[in-house]
Amino acid sequence: MQTYKPPVDDMLFQLDAFGYGRVAELEAFDAYDRDTIEALIRQAAAFGAEMSATNKAGDTEGVKWEPETGAITTATGFKETYLKMKEAGFIGLCSAEEYGGGGAPSTLGTFVTEIWTAANKSLSMCPGLTAGLVEALTAYGTDEQKQTFLPKLISGEWAGTMCLTEPQCGTDLGLCRTKAVPFGDHFKLTGTKIWITFGEHDLTDNIVHLVLGRLPDAPEGIKGISTFLVPKVTLEGKRNPVKCTGVEHKMGIHGSPTCVIDMEDAEGWLVGEPHRGMRTMFVMMNEARLLVGVEGISLADVAYQQALSFAKDRRQSRSLDPAKQDKDQPADNILVHPDVRRMLLNVKSTVEGMRGVATYISLNIDLAHKSPDEKVREKADDIVALLTPIVKGFNTEKGFQNISDAMQVCGGSGYTTDWNIEQYMRDSRIAMIYEGTNHIQALDLVGRKLPRHGGRLVKNFQAEVMALFAACQGKEELAEFLEPTQKIFGALTEVTMDLGGRALAAAEQAGAGATNYLNLFGYATLAFSWLMQCKYALENDSAMTKTKLKTARYYFAQVLPEAYGLIPKIKAGKDTMMDFDVSEL
Amino acid sequence: MQTYKPPVDDMLFQLDAFGYGRVAELEAFDAYDRDTIEALIRQAAAFGAEMSATNKAGDTEGVKWEPETGAITTATGFKETYLKMKEAGFIGLCSAEEYGGGGAPSTLGTFVTEIWTAANKSLSMCPGLTAGLVEALTAYGTDEQKQTFLPKLISGEWAGTMCLTEPQCGTDLGLCRTKAVPFGDHFKLTGTKIWITFGEHDLTDNIVHLVLGRLPDAPEGIKGISTFLVPKVTLEGKRNPVKCTGVEHKMGIHGSPTCVIDMEDAEGWLVGEPHRGMRTMFVMMNEARLLVGVEGISLADVAYQQALSFAKDRRQSRSLDPAKQDKDQPADNILVHPDVRRMLLNVKSTVEGMRGVATYISLNIDLAHKSPDEKVREKADDIVALLTPIVKGFNTEKGFQNISDAMQVCGGSGYTTDWNIEQYMRDSRIAMIYEGTNHIQALDLVGRKLPRHGGRLVKNFQAEVMALFAACQGKEELAEFLEPTQKIFGALTEVTMDLGGRALAAAEQAGAGATNYLNLFGYATLAFSWLMQCKYALENDSAMTKTKLKTARYYFAQVLPEAYGLIPKIKAGKDTMMDFDVSEL
Repeated sequence: MQTYKPPVDDMLFQLDAFGYGRVAELEAFDAYDRDTIEALIRQAAAFGAEMSATNKAGDTEGVKWEPETGAITTATGFKETYLKMKEAGFIGLCSAEEYGGGGAPSTLGTFVTEIWTAANKSLSMCPGLTAGLVEALTAYGTDEQKQTFLPKLISGEWAGTMCLTEPQCGTDLGLCRTKAVPFGDHFKLTGTKIWITFGEHDLTDNIVHLVLGRLPDAPEGIKGISTFLVPKVTLEGKRNPVKCTGVEHKMGIHGSPTCVIDMEDAEGWLVGEPHRGMRTMFVMMNEARLLVGVEGISLADVAYQQALSFAKDRRQSRSLDPAKQDKDQPADNILVHPDVRRMLLNVKSTVEGMRGVATYISLNIDLAHKSPDEKVREKADDIVALLTPIVKGFNTEKGFQNISDAMQVCGGSGYTTDWNIEQYMRDSRIAMIYEGTNHIQALDLVGRKLPRHGGRLVKNFQAEVMALFAACQGKEELAEFLEPTQKIFGALTEVTMDLGGRALAAAEQAGAGATNYLNLFGYATLAFSWLMQCKYALENDSAMTKTKLKTARYYFAQVLPEAYGLIPKIKAGKDTMMDFDVSEL
Repeated sequence: MQTYKPPVDDMLFQLDAFGYGRVAELEAFDAYDRDTIEALIRQAAAFGAEMSATNKAGDTEGVKWEPETGAITTATGFKETYLKMKEAGFIGLCSAEEYGGGGAPSTLGTFVTEIWTAANKSLSMCPGLTAGLVEALTAYGTDEQKQTFLPKLISGEWAGTMCLTEPQCGTDLGLCRTKAVPFGDHFKLTGTKIWITFGEHDLTDNIVHLVLGRLPDAPEGIKGISTFLVPKVTLEGKRNPVKCTGVEHKMGIHGSPTCVIDMEDAEGWLVGEPHRGMRTMFVMMNEARLLVGVEGISLADVAYQQALSFAKDRRQSRSLDPAKQDKDQPADNILVHPDVRRMLLNVKSTVEGMRGVATYISLNIDLAHKSPDEKVREKADDIVALLTPIVKGFNTEKGFQNISDAMQVCGGSGYTTDWNIEQYMRDSRIAMIYEGTNHIQALDLVGRKLPRHGGRLVKNFQAEVMALFAACQGKEELAEFLEPTQKIFGALTEVTMDLGGRALAAAEQAGAGATNYLNLFGYATLAFSWLMQCKYALENDSAMTKTKLKTARYYFAQVLPEAYGLIPKIKAGKDTMMDFDVSEL
């Protein structure tokens, strides 16, 4: 089996194609010029290879939960690998320097996440959650909270979690019932949280939970939610009554403990203003949503690598083109078969397209956070807000399909545990569900992001798309990529107007069309990504140029047409769904 | 969790909609009038409920293999359930009466298979393979072979297998190396077979393998393959040197042993003519391909049932339509959300459409086998041959997507083993691979079935489609279903001509377009199925009529448009795939 080879060359290409220069020139990223970023990507890549050695143990051993104490032991090698990650300074790489972080750009962080997820998704979730908590605390914590918690979280000495869901409330967080009662300078929290990733484990001495709860005077629903910091071990070193009372048995991500967490009068501290907890949660969540989108890239890429290595070794049947038949052998290598290439290229062309989009969003995160120019910050922030649900929804769905294509290349072997592809398929499926199901992303896109600030987010993204079109216009060698990109954006605009108009008349129309609309937007965004990559590749001739153009051609010919199958579905609207009585389903 | 409820009402509807009368009137099926069939479906359904009780044990326990002896113990309850199936006479239900079979029509057999697969796919594979072997022996065995083996196989006392694949030959059976050396009146077989489903188990006293091998004078390749019967225990009661030397560890179907079978000078008997073994194998294989297509229906349907029962209990968020909000509750039932219905109806509308197609093929199998009219037999056989690869490829791909939709309805719960949906997803994925990968089905369709007898197969199917169009023409209430069906068949014809023309110029064009073409044909065939169902429902008003029309409307509005996304991909041809050097992948 092919061991995972992080796609360093493509990452560097994306960095340049999408203009890392704009980030490197910011004062905040003085220490991160292009060469430094490259060196760090290579360092992360080397570590990724090491990290992937523990992947299989996570899948086969899972986690060991001790019901009596609630303790969880992670799989063989997880703790050692985590400690190495910590020592290498990777965990706080992008966190604030004043609390010991590396202050690196998100662009780098996204690549590092991609590598670690591909290497060992289960293990990578622990530092991923810690990074989210650090963001939320940095944004809304008091100075004291920051000084107390951030250095230990950023160093990786402690880990973080997000405690949102309860048995009666998943998608609908307004139904949250966990109680927080004032007690001196802090609060006592009581409630049960479920689906808590790394809610308990043996990787760190302490675990800090960010918990959604209600104050006694809280209004009902989402406007009565506050956020609290609840550490497993209190600052005085006492065990807080926060216990893991169960672990889920899941289809995949076996190495990642998914916990039921019970709190009974647990000590906690309010983060941010009372009843404004969703703001804090969303800082953590938005970061997480982009990274879940990146999971779609990671696991598809590593599955692709395995499928390609299988294909290179496998001989079956004869080429349909007599000139390509290898007469010295009883059968031809399966890469002569167009369909084997079709499946591989479905993956390659979407993975590289999605990697470009993730890079583009990450660069905009860096601009939004650190540009001195308010207009630049606003525009970049708009692009991030608009594209985050698209990346989360589209990449996770495509990523799952991609892994299925990679499995198909390997035939029966791909279905066995001798290859890891079946694990990647199981591990990847959750990404369409967690951090807000893909339909929640679609509603966020259609219901919040499109109308926000009078449509400013779309206008700001469209302006960048139009600028790219203008820059490509008249360049003959770009015409084959420009024309279909213009066409799909034209169609997208038309569908956006149509859906918007119908949603005004009946909000259910937005719900009925949202998921397909998100995917349509996803295909268009990938076309934008490929056009940008082709333009850069042609203007900067390198060993990659020819292959990039070929891969783009495949995307436009063999993937993008799927988008046109979505349009009539969106236009057909809600009626055929809503006409059913429940008894008819 | 919802226990499995076999879809008896829909099965009876399909039976009538597709005209079981044409089969019932045949002399061969005297004993199987419409009422008898209904009674037998109900009996199979009652047994299915019992059978599903053992499903989970198969998934969690898997099979126990004893390396020393090669013996395999199946999961708790498998043997008892198998024995009940045998006692009820289900195993030989459709086999020849002269050897103790029930002589029932395939139409009934297909429904029974659907029920059993949904109830416990792993266990159902054992009698499924036996039935295939019985077909092959009935067609090509000598009288002596038939008299010796058929009664025991048909009663279920013995089980059958198909031994095709070897490590170096999966898709490409011409690479088969197993040797068969003449020895008195029989042969000695030596070789290693892999992926042998139920190659060893404890359900029966004897297992009869149908083995592909080569005689000493065999020409190379596919034209040198012969088939042999190799029983685990010889007719003299001696243990034949046929040993299970390994079992695969798979993503799913854990309850079904997938064996490595080693033969060393094992006693075997030639079936059919020397070097003409593929003919025998294809009798077994064609039957199996239809039944694998049915798996796509079974597992999607049982996943749908679970998702619907989850949805009926779950409250999250508010309806987007204020009039539908349940103010007495803190949240609305999730069936108010259009997207939840979208996902459920994706499943329902394709499952019922595919069940119609499977019924239509099964009826044609019965006509092809038993009609006294040669013209009827020929036409029916053409339709079966044409549609079998489509049902295998399209249903298994759609079925897998359907299960993913069903999982998504259940959110995080669907990803846990608390619900069976994740098992159905794992169990179903293999169906796109085995009995010929879906691309092999596509090549069979494009390369063999379309050109066969000068295009007669398509002409015969088209004639039935046109007859349906003619019968629907001018009926106002059918226009909304007729028009899109005519349109997709028009598009299909156009694409068929285009692909055919390009394939003549370069055979690789057929390979490049085949998989998408098969799926396009699949969507069109489902449109035909729905038009037939709508026509019947309108002409025979019943409690189901309204719901059938609504479900068809959903199919035409929200599923069929996907087909149009495939057409530009097929037309784009091979170039973007074949232009890559292997080093560029």
